[in-house]
Amino acid sequence: MTNRPPTAYAELEGRFARLSHVNGARAVLSWDHQAMMPEGGAEARADQLATLAVLAHEMLTDPRHGDLLDRAEGETLDDWQRANLAEMRRQWRHATAVESALVETLSKAVSASEHAWREARPANDFKGFAPKLARVLELVREVAARKAAALGVGPYDALLDEYEPGGSSAAIDAIFDDLEAFLPGFLGEVMELQARRGRAHAPAGPFAVERQRALGERVMRTMGFDFRHGRLDVSRHPFCGGTPDDVRITTRYDEADFTSALMGVIHETGHALYEMGLPRPWRSQPVGQPRGMSLHESQSLLMEMQACRSREFIGFAAPLMREAFGGEGAAWEADNLYRLYTHVEPGFIRVDADEVTYPAHVILRYKLERAMIAGELRVADLPGAWAEGMQRMLGIVPPDDRLGCMQDIHWPDGAWGYFPTYTLGALTAAQLFAAARKADPGIPAAIGRGDFGPLVAWLRANVHGLASSLPTPEILRRATGRPLETLAFKAHLRQRYLA
Amino acid sequence: MTNRPPTAYAELEGRFARLSHVNGARAVLSWDHQAMMPEGGAEARADQLATLAVLAHEMLTDPRHGDLLDRAEGETLDDWQRANLAEMRRQWRHATAVESALVETLSKAVSASEHAWREARPANDFKGFAPKLARVLELVREVAARKAAALGVGPYDALLDEYEPGGSSAAIDAIFDDLEAFLPGFLGEVMELQARRGRAHAPAGPFAVERQRALGERVMRTMGFDFRHGRLDVSRHPFCGGTPDDVRITTRYDEADFTSALMGVIHETGHALYEMGLPRPWRSQPVGQPRGMSLHESQSLLMEMQACRSREFIGFAAPLMREAFGGEGAAWEADNLYRLYTHVEPGFIRVDADEVTYPAHVILRYKLERAMIAGELRVADLPGAWAEGMQRMLGIVPPDDRLGCMQDIHWPDGAWGYFPTYTLGALTAAQLFAAARKADPGIPAAIGRGDFGPLVAWLRANVHGLASSLPTPEILRRATGRPLETLAFKAHLRQRYLA
Repeated sequence: MTNRPPTAYAELEGRFARLSHVNGARAVLSWDHQAMMPEGGAEARADQLATLAVLAHEMLTDPRHGDLLDRAEGETLDDWQRANLAEMRRQWRHATAVESALVETLSKAVSASEHAWREARPANDFKGFAPKLARVLELVREVAARKAAALGVGPYDALLDEYEPGGSSAAIDAIFDDLEAFLPGFLGEVMELQARRGRAHAPAGPFAVERQRALGERVMRTMGFDFRHGRLDVSRHPFCGGTPDDVRITTRYDEADFTSALMGVIHETGHALYEMGLPRPWRSQPVGQPRGMSLHESQSLLMEMQACRSREFIGFAAPLMREAFGGEGAAWEADNLYRLYTHVEPGFIRVDADEVTYPAHVILRYKLERAMIAGELRVADLPGAWAEGMQRMLGIVPPDDRLGCMQDIHWPDGAWGYFPTYTLGALTAAQLFAAARKADPGIPAAIGRGDFGPLVAWLRANVHGLASSLPTPEILRRATGRPLETLAFKAHLRQRYLA
Repeated sequence: MTNRPPTAYAELEGRFARLSHVNGARAVLSWDHQAMMPEGGAEARADQLATLAVLAHEMLTDPRHGDLLDRAEGETLDDWQRANLAEMRRQWRHATAVESALVETLSKAVSASEHAWREARPANDFKGFAPKLARVLELVREVAARKAAALGVGPYDALLDEYEPGGSSAAIDAIFDDLEAFLPGFLGEVMELQARRGRAHAPAGPFAVERQRALGERVMRTMGFDFRHGRLDVSRHPFCGGTPDDVRITTRYDEADFTSALMGVIHETGHALYEMGLPRPWRSQPVGQPRGMSLHESQSLLMEMQACRSREFIGFAAPLMREAFGGEGAAWEADNLYRLYTHVEPGFIRVDADEVTYPAHVILRYKLERAMIAGELRVADLPGAWAEGMQRMLGIVPPDDRLGCMQDIHWPDGAWGYFPTYTLGALTAAQLFAAARKADPGIPAAIGRGDFGPLVAWLRANVHGLASSLPTPEILRRATGRPLETLAFKAHLRQRYLA
């Protein structure tokens, strides 16, 4: 009988499992904060989230972890365990770069600014909101400085690394420059062709919220969302939260237009399917977590932009829409709905943007947040810089800050370095969907029958089930045979909008 | 300039504030578990709650606390600080009696048995459920043994002390014996008089859930529930949860009968008003917490039984009910509704019981759980013992375990020693309401106008605002001039049911 002491690796697995339970609790509390909590609970919730953030930080930065990580390196591990150990070290390196007090201060500032944003945005009160945001920026810059020193990269790249492990602004610059060179000309061609074809007809509302919700849930089921492990609710800014075993997605409804909520639900369902497809035995370990934000966003955009704005899907969904709202007439025909769902028009709101103009919104935010992190742009000057950027890239200027720099939750929420992952995700989605169709040419026809099985099976095998066992570029290379590039995205845009 | 080190007391306040944030997080997660969570999230939630329970336990039993508590005793403190210190020591004494591993094992067993209960109860599957409950009992008995040794009381009293600080089964025996002697004869008299008067007419349904919910929220507002700091939702077993700044109450709706949900909502609102009335500066400290379960239950029963089944309240509420459901005719008249709301009838379900037969349900559970904790009754023998007790006390035998020993969440939830506080609460409610009316004779008339201001003001001053600054008997003595006794309760019953 052997009675060996537990290995360092085994001890780390136990400690990271406990940490994942705390992080799961935080995720549910954050969902509640946005989807359920009455406003008077904000202060107490901020205290709860701040304390749990500190506890998680203390658990991750336990003084014994450096030694345990070193010892575990020398132990016999299989590939997933070795990848798990690497992810443990990555998380530990991020966490040890920043002291507990700063983590707690930032968490409280984020709660305060997020709360202020919820009140200031509808009131278009940027002046009232700006000091809270400036406080968050000040603290995020402190965090960036600490992490830059620890990781040996620039401050912005150090923030980016949290969302996109290994990502770099140099690589992003190259890809975004390519897109910036491509998009204005392409957009011109699309607008010209669209003008020649004439406008699609929007079905006439109002569309009762309850019916929109039922339609959304039906489409979620069709896509493979498992309601034994998730919910759909309402929040001002839609998101996918909760945990892989209990995925909470949200949307917001507009009684005058059902299409935005429906596509929002499809988008979040793409995120949810990634979470639900993570390998069950590894869910409480770092290696079992989603790989990064560009891959996460690729899953939502693959569903929203590639699969569910396709002519095949609209053909399947049009009868469901007619049934949901009692729709009749030309506006409800699949061809018209397809034109509606692929309508291109420069607008102020990122989350309402079509896939052609969306990258411009992201490139603007990327440049502005880089400038703010670098100390080259003050929060007070944000509205002016925003207007200038919108004018330059899309030729329009928002009439107020609601439609401008106050539209997104990310900055008040402390998520700086996050925005570029949206467009990286769009490129990844195009590249993955092309590879999936190449591997299984029956996928578009199956989607046309409301059968997402073949597509989801390919994603489970090539993306979801790999979790964080490989770096993002390696997952992409194995799945598509190529590094990330703009090729598939441009080909997709040309095919959809100019064919 | 002085630069003194922080006092031991100040350090303890910081530590207990942090603990209260973790406990607040646990409260919200428990609410979510019962009101929102899809079933597939149960295992992950059990892990989250177990880990937070362990963290809270570790925080409370920090090795430095013994020394800090001793040092703080010698520091200069005001009355509330001194009471806070005493509560800190009480909590610490409970927590240090039980080791972390046992706490975690119990927490997981409770999650498993609560989940099993949710499935077994509708299926009337006691056999399938019993092993999970037996496991909880086994662990609770271990906890009781540890706490009995630490507190120097018997195992049952040690469990009781968690819910009713300083409570003893000897005192409960005396009060319950008094009630047992009084109730059968009294019940006979009531049943006889009621039979002579004839049945009240139940308004005819169905009563749409949405309208019931709207009526419930209207009555909550009338009573002083602040929706900026709370919500009303649905769960199988109604409860009051969340935190004082964000009180989450739940109910369950029956489309055939709106009265049970409405009175359930009023009951939980009584609990909620206590939480919402706790002194704001002390909410994150032990002294700022509700005093104990009998006082908590007294607040719900004071609202449900004393105030809102009064002729005055029914007179105010009858038009609201008619308006909510479009009610017309004799069944909707206040006199009929009052008779309906004060109808007495022995039944199987505790939460549906009238205030005359309710104590019999509690006395049964009290005796059974004492026997189980003492090792004199096995879980397998519970259905038989239950039937025997119901027959003896109320003359009826439940046809199945859904209507018998599986009706309550308490035992599967690990809450042993809790049941007697319901009837202690009923006695306390009668005694407090009598004192409130004596202090302000205008209270009943105000309730008849839908003005709960005078009653809630008296409760704020005499109960809510005191939180845990005094022992329960002292709060009661100051508010009513008497120790807890059966006098006011019996007088109330006689006045309502035999006058």
